[in-house]
Amino acid sequence: MRLLLPLLLVGAAPAPAQQPPLRAQIRQFRQTNEAAIVDEFVEFLALPNVATNLEDIRRNADHLRGMMEKRGLRTESLEVEGGPVSVYGERTFPGATKTVVFYAHFDGQPVDSSRWATGAWAPQLLSGPLAPGAREVPRLKSGGRYDPETRVFARSASDDKAPILALLWALDALQAAGITPSVNVKFFFEGEEEAGSSHLRSVLTKYRSLLGADFWIFCDGPVHQSRALQAVFGVRGVIGANLTVYGPIRPLHSGHYGNWAPNPNAMMVHLLASMRDTEGRITIPGYYDAVKPVTAAERAAFRAMPPVDEQLIGELQLGRTEAAPATLADQLALPALNISGLSGGQATGGGANVIVAESKAYLDFRLVPNQTPNVVRKLVEAHVQRLGFHIVRADPDSITRRNYPRLIRIDWSGGYSAARTSIDHPGAKALLAAADQVIGKPLIRVPTLGGSLPLADFVDLLQIPFVILPIVNHDNNQHGENENVRLGNLWDGIELFAGVLARMGREWQPIP
Amino acid sequence: MRLLLPLLLVGAAPAPAQQPPLRAQIRQFRQTNEAAIVDEFVEFLALPNVATNLEDIRRNADHLRGMMEKRGLRTESLEVEGGPVSVYGERTFPGATKTVVFYAHFDGQPVDSSRWATGAWAPQLLSGPLAPGAREVPRLKSGGRYDPETRVFARSASDDKAPILALLWALDALQAAGITPSVNVKFFFEGEEEAGSSHLRSVLTKYRSLLGADFWIFCDGPVHQSRALQAVFGVRGVIGANLTVYGPIRPLHSGHYGNWAPNPNAMMVHLLASMRDTEGRITIPGYYDAVKPVTAAERAAFRAMPPVDEQLIGELQLGRTEAAPATLADQLALPALNISGLSGGQATGGGANVIVAESKAYLDFRLVPNQTPNVVRKLVEAHVQRLGFHIVRADPDSITRRNYPRLIRIDWSGGYSAARTSIDHPGAKALLAAADQVIGKPLIRVPTLGGSLPLADFVDLLQIPFVILPIVNHDNNQHGENENVRLGNLWDGIELFAGVLARMGREWQPIP
Repeated sequence: MRLLLPLLLVGAAPAPAQQPPLRAQIRQFRQTNEAAIVDEFVEFLALPNVATNLEDIRRNADHLRGMMEKRGLRTESLEVEGGPVSVYGERTFPGATKTVVFYAHFDGQPVDSSRWATGAWAPQLLSGPLAPGAREVPRLKSGGRYDPETRVFARSASDDKAPILALLWALDALQAAGITPSVNVKFFFEGEEEAGSSHLRSVLTKYRSLLGADFWIFCDGPVHQSRALQAVFGVRGVIGANLTVYGPIRPLHSGHYGNWAPNPNAMMVHLLASMRDTEGRITIPGYYDAVKPVTAAERAAFRAMPPVDEQLIGELQLGRTEAAPATLADQLALPALNISGLSGGQATGGGANVIVAESKAYLDFRLVPNQTPNVVRKLVEAHVQRLGFHIVRADPDSITRRNYPRLIRIDWSGGYSAARTSIDHPGAKALLAAADQVIGKPLIRVPTLGGSLPLADFVDLLQIPFVILPIVNHDNNQHGENENVRLGNLWDGIELFAGVLARMGREWQPIP
Repeated sequence: MRLLLPLLLVGAAPAPAQQPPLRAQIRQFRQTNEAAIVDEFVEFLALPNVATNLEDIRRNADHLRGMMEKRGLRTESLEVEGGPVSVYGERTFPGATKTVVFYAHFDGQPVDSSRWATGAWAPQLLSGPLAPGAREVPRLKSGGRYDPETRVFARSASDDKAPILALLWALDALQAAGITPSVNVKFFFEGEEEAGSSHLRSVLTKYRSLLGADFWIFCDGPVHQSRALQAVFGVRGVIGANLTVYGPIRPLHSGHYGNWAPNPNAMMVHLLASMRDTEGRITIPGYYDAVKPVTAAERAAFRAMPPVDEQLIGELQLGRTEAAPATLADQLALPALNISGLSGGQATGGGANVIVAESKAYLDFRLVPNQTPNVVRKLVEAHVQRLGFHIVRADPDSITRRNYPRLIRIDWSGGYSAARTSIDHPGAKALLAAADQVIGKPLIRVPTLGGSLPLADFVDLLQIPFVILPIVNHDNNQHGENENVRLGNLWDGIELFAGVLARMGREWQPIP
């Protein structure tokens, strides 16, 4: 997963409820099998898996299919022209009427070996985080128990092979306990996530019917830094725009030409000031028309989230927040226009006393349901044109410069919609009920992240509700050197996934 | 002189009037003495004169005093603690009732010898600009005539020893013709101009009574590129301001914190947009209160200036000008607020999708009479404060950051007032009448430059009217390598100065 989930702080944890029998059963099984789990994990982690190496990815996929078939899953390699292979698996269960797809990815980020204390694909166990005093932990024989603070160091230990292990061992644990999963399961294990998922849309299109389901669970990203579990139901979309406003063809002496030659910085600041206020409100006419209002349930979930604002305000040394008293959670459910970059001549030191030739800005727009990148582009450009600008897509020639009093180049980049599943969706409710039961306390409900993930490919194409359900520790060095996962998180993940498999189908209530 | 005079274009030159006898007399004398003029010039140019080398400056000063005393001038070294020496000279003439100070400077910019085709202090004559085909021109014997396109290459050949030579030979020419100067003359030859004139104010203060006069003539800078002579009666003042608006203590992910953490770029664009419009008009309340209106005579002079707007608009590829149909000349007589620099995060490429920690701008304010830097500072800061900003003078600590919702650092730099002499002043009229007569056609009258020169030190302290009267060619490489002066410009300068000396006093009419 490309983004860290935001740091949410939990308040005082409610007193633990009586441990539910299901969790005890799963835990018992895991405790008996810790050595085997770690052995299988280490074997999987030993396979180099940089996303751009198609052969390595194929070796991982073949190995993974073997792991899945051992559990009685029917598997398939999902392939499109030129892309790395992804892995599909499925198993139906008697009585199950709903089908859930679990998403994870088995490819990993590139490795700079010189920065790793261990080998990236020579998995090693240490007694804790890589820090003075960390001891190497020997591999145990069958029946041995690891300290849950033990960590496995390897590329993709957290991001994102751990959830795959936890899912497969959750199936094993249920089978050992004689519990039939309450949902039919499908697995979509991607092999290209860390390389930008450029073939994902083709894969989803080609295998659309195979991937049909009632709900998707994205098992990626870290849990909260307090180790509390959270379920995330949405992400904002994003689209970027590079703006260039043109002045004279070359920089001019500001004394000899100032307040006569058009100043592109002045035009830029007026343009940007017309687009948003200082409280985060976007002032482009019609901008909020497509925005789907936050639902009562989402509002309630935001209110129930552990409060973070005060701590963040202190940590970030802020004298105010935009649109106060709105909270961070309130604001992240709204569209944003961020002026991420500004550049037009030398702003430090004595300055250059010039009329610059160009003024540049980079804007990133965060989208919420039901905005689309296309609608945002149109609204922005209509606004810019109303202010008298002529829009170009490349640097203008001299005739264009002479013909238009106000010239702007706009280059759009990226662009995908927000994705959000209603916290009221029967699948969402079923998932939360199942997860809360097995964990023994409510998961943190996050209606949406402020950040963006390209989930719209899934949502647009497959029209499915989803949740992001992470299990790994937040301090996992994902993408960097010495990536690791804490075994305690892997254990918790097995319990979480087993609970979801066992009960989500039973909790799924028809829409009243 | 630190600034190039602006490029003014002359229209069709009027038909040359009958050559006035005075000019013919001066020319005859010069033609007879070209070899001697060049010899004296070369000797003076051979003295290294980098402004920061006090001993070299003293050698120049001693040599220059010798040149002046040879002409019957009383001379004096002007010295203040720690500063380089400047040279004073004076001579009164029977019947003269007005005293004029001619200003020039004999120090020069530092030299990068490796970039000079000739030695910077080994003056050399070439047949024209340094270009393929330029031939070395041998020094002539007495009575010899140089082609006026011949150029002398040396540091300060143009900037600013040429006017000194022209002034002294103008005195010689008048004496030879038996013409008594119509004004008493004083010379103030500065030795520190190219090093920033940091002792100038002390020198002017110490020698205030010695430097008392009715008019100052600044002989510095180049003439128009068409070689037409111009008289400049004003410069704008200038003051710079570095602004820093603060956001979070570190850059934040724009997805997770956008539209909640205050965006300093958004605050900056709103602040700047509130300070000036896109037509050059400053919108800070009260900003124009101190501005002295342009007089009817100045307006008429602007109208009479060779039109340059159309050509510049084409050359600079502009689609409009600010405040059109106002002309460049109209605008340069007004105050300006130039947004010279803007910087806040990466604006090119894909951008960084961050809330930046700081947004910076550099503003240069061009002042006109009777604004002062102090009044500008106060107006700007009052405006910034009205918008809710707390102003700091250094990067704020965490307590300050927490205490103020809007924080801005303002660092002012430079700062001197405009200077402008009314074109109606009897001295200005006398100078123009004298100059027009000797040259045989009207000089271009420039009520003010858009650019800035620190003349306020002179004007404030000495309360004298002034003109800038340049003689050297515009393509003189001043400040750079291969600095040069065209002999034709030196010859014209001798005629111009002789005409002014001969007739300015006679043309000086009492205020009616």
